[in-house]
Amino acid sequence: MEYKQWQLTTRPVGEPTRQNFTYATVSMPEVKTGEIAVKIKYISLDPAMRGWMNDGKSYIEPVQLGDVMRAGTVGEVIASESDGFSVGDHVYGHFGVQEYAVVNAKGVHKVSPELAPLERYLGVLGMPGMTAYFGLLKTGLPKEGETVVVSGAAGAVGTVVGQIAKIKGCRVVGIAGGKDKCDYLTRELGFDAAVDYKSGEFRKDLKAACPNGIDVYFDNVGGDILDEVLTKINLRARIVVCGAISQYNNTTPVKGPSNYLSLLVNRARMEGIVVFDNVAEYPLAAKEMASWIAEGTLKAKEHVVEGLDTFPETLLMLFKGENFGKLVLKVEHSE
Amino acid sequence: MEYKQWQLTTRPVGEPTRQNFTYATVSMPEVKTGEIAVKIKYISLDPAMRGWMNDGKSYIEPVQLGDVMRAGTVGEVIASESDGFSVGDHVYGHFGVQEYAVVNAKGVHKVSPELAPLERYLGVLGMPGMTAYFGLLKTGLPKEGETVVVSGAAGAVGTVVGQIAKIKGCRVVGIAGGKDKCDYLTRELGFDAAVDYKSGEFRKDLKAACPNGIDVYFDNVGGDILDEVLTKINLRARIVVCGAISQYNNTTPVKGPSNYLSLLVNRARMEGIVVFDNVAEYPLAAKEMASWIAEGTLKAKEHVVEGLDTFPETLLMLFKGENFGKLVLKVEHSE
Repeated sequence: MEYKQWQLTTRPVGEPTRQNFTYATVSMPEVKTGEIAVKIKYISLDPAMRGWMNDGKSYIEPVQLGDVMRAGTVGEVIASESDGFSVGDHVYGHFGVQEYAVVNAKGVHKVSPELAPLERYLGVLGMPGMTAYFGLLKTGLPKEGETVVVSGAAGAVGTVVGQIAKIKGCRVVGIAGGKDKCDYLTRELGFDAAVDYKSGEFRKDLKAACPNGIDVYFDNVGGDILDEVLTKINLRARIVVCGAISQYNNTTPVKGPSNYLSLLVNRARMEGIVVFDNVAEYPLAAKEMASWIAEGTLKAKEHVVEGLDTFPETLLMLFKGENFGKLVLKVEHSE
Repeated sequence: MEYKQWQLTTRPVGEPTRQNFTYATVSMPEVKTGEIAVKIKYISLDPAMRGWMNDGKSYIEPVQLGDVMRAGTVGEVIASESDGFSVGDHVYGHFGVQEYAVVNAKGVHKVSPELAPLERYLGVLGMPGMTAYFGLLKTGLPKEGETVVVSGAAGAVGTVVGQIAKIKGCRVVGIAGGKDKCDYLTRELGFDAAVDYKSGEFRKDLKAACPNGIDVYFDNVGGDILDEVLTKINLRARIVVCGAISQYNNTTPVKGPSNYLSLLVNRARMEGIVVFDNVAEYPLAAKEMASWIAEGTLKAKEHVVEGLDTFPETLLMLFKGENFGKLVLKVEHSE
């Protein structure tokens, strides 16, 4: 059987474009002992993918040129040579940006379409949800009554960070682009305030939204927003460095936070997180998150775009701030 | 009695110069109840003084225009209306850049010229020593066998940081300017290596000095050195932000660390410290430091310049990297 896949062909300089990839047709390899074949249904599109396209040392190996682009995915098992999996099982794994995959079953885990829509396992029930949970609770250490600010607040991680901070009794302020997203955060997700960084009055609006300063900042964007937040942090504030989407496509050096000496004045801390460090605790977190979803205090939102062929352009929605909730690519299969 | 004092007259833009101060002659005020009069013998010159000259919110009030410039000092009590102090006592306090001071005795403490030379109470036995002790041990959290790097290594804080890290069993690398300072660090203070940031080969030299990467970085300088260190930190590294002397005289915005996303990749932390937070623990720290000095594992070095009238130019030695050890101004009195 033949199927389509997106291979990384050249390393992007600045924004990745269609020219950096090859939309190849490949033949399905034989399924060997220990392997499974998966029909991929949803592909997670994440800011981190931009980093995986770069060469050089990071927390994970770069995608090699000529290889299928790495991505978290959910799909259905269509052939199995692994004792752990049967045809018809639904599974999560890093199967890549393609229609089908044949992979070693190690690191693959089952998901249940009865408990939640499949795409949700790429969002609140998946990596972004875990990132929010562990990043906020283990590194942000929010205390009841504190002010928690999150950027990229309408994104996959940000929506979950804000809702968990509300559950923990904090004043929650989201930073997002545009009135629709800001309204969604306050009206649907219960954020106490939302600040539109595109409003032209960002500095003033952020100050108004944080009358008691900022105790925890969960940063997904970096750049000028991080710098502005640094001017408003409180004594012993915690800044969780989860990402810096404003900087990922830079062709000039990353903009370092000019106001970082506010860490000194405020005896504050800035700390990086990588979700994979918490693998052993995923099941416990998933259980707690599921209970919040069941009681209605944690809501999910996915932004589903159809068509594997749209991958390069759909990915760019992340960097343009066009997604609203967890961005997911739905795969329509050739046959 | 009349005496000389340095008053802050205008707020410096960039490097402070003689023009920002007035070398005034003032009359000694009456010593009221609860006050003491002090003949100041040594004045501490510290990078932090540059920050005190700026207006705006910080960890301490700015020096007001027209006021005597704030400084840590040691001197001798020449008159006392306080039960706690007698004429002839030697004392430490923030008496300012002047020959004499009449101050409330609150916050003043006695020092002993029998136990150590007076100027030492401004260095290893004073604020810089405490800064090094608490910053390294409570925030840097060095473990035996780890690599600790300190910048401004030949300065008042840096020399102590490095020696305490050696006592704790770490590999210690100092960053300093010039061969003399680097030789001093390795030959006299027992640093494992010293890297000359002026050598033109800083990047290569730092890499060679840290074959196992960097676990703790105690930063006194900021700027390009901080950025270079960030490229070499290990998983879960701790960066102690104590100062950024390279940036204090900037007339352009502070250079933020472009490589701060290394914190993310390495799940590392960057945290600011202010020594005053540890006041309650000073006596314990002083006792431990005194025992290290007695056993010869902690050595002191002061750089004494004579003449109160040289204050503005002597202060600049800090920013030019011309001091070698703790910079202290020795006061010659008018009469």
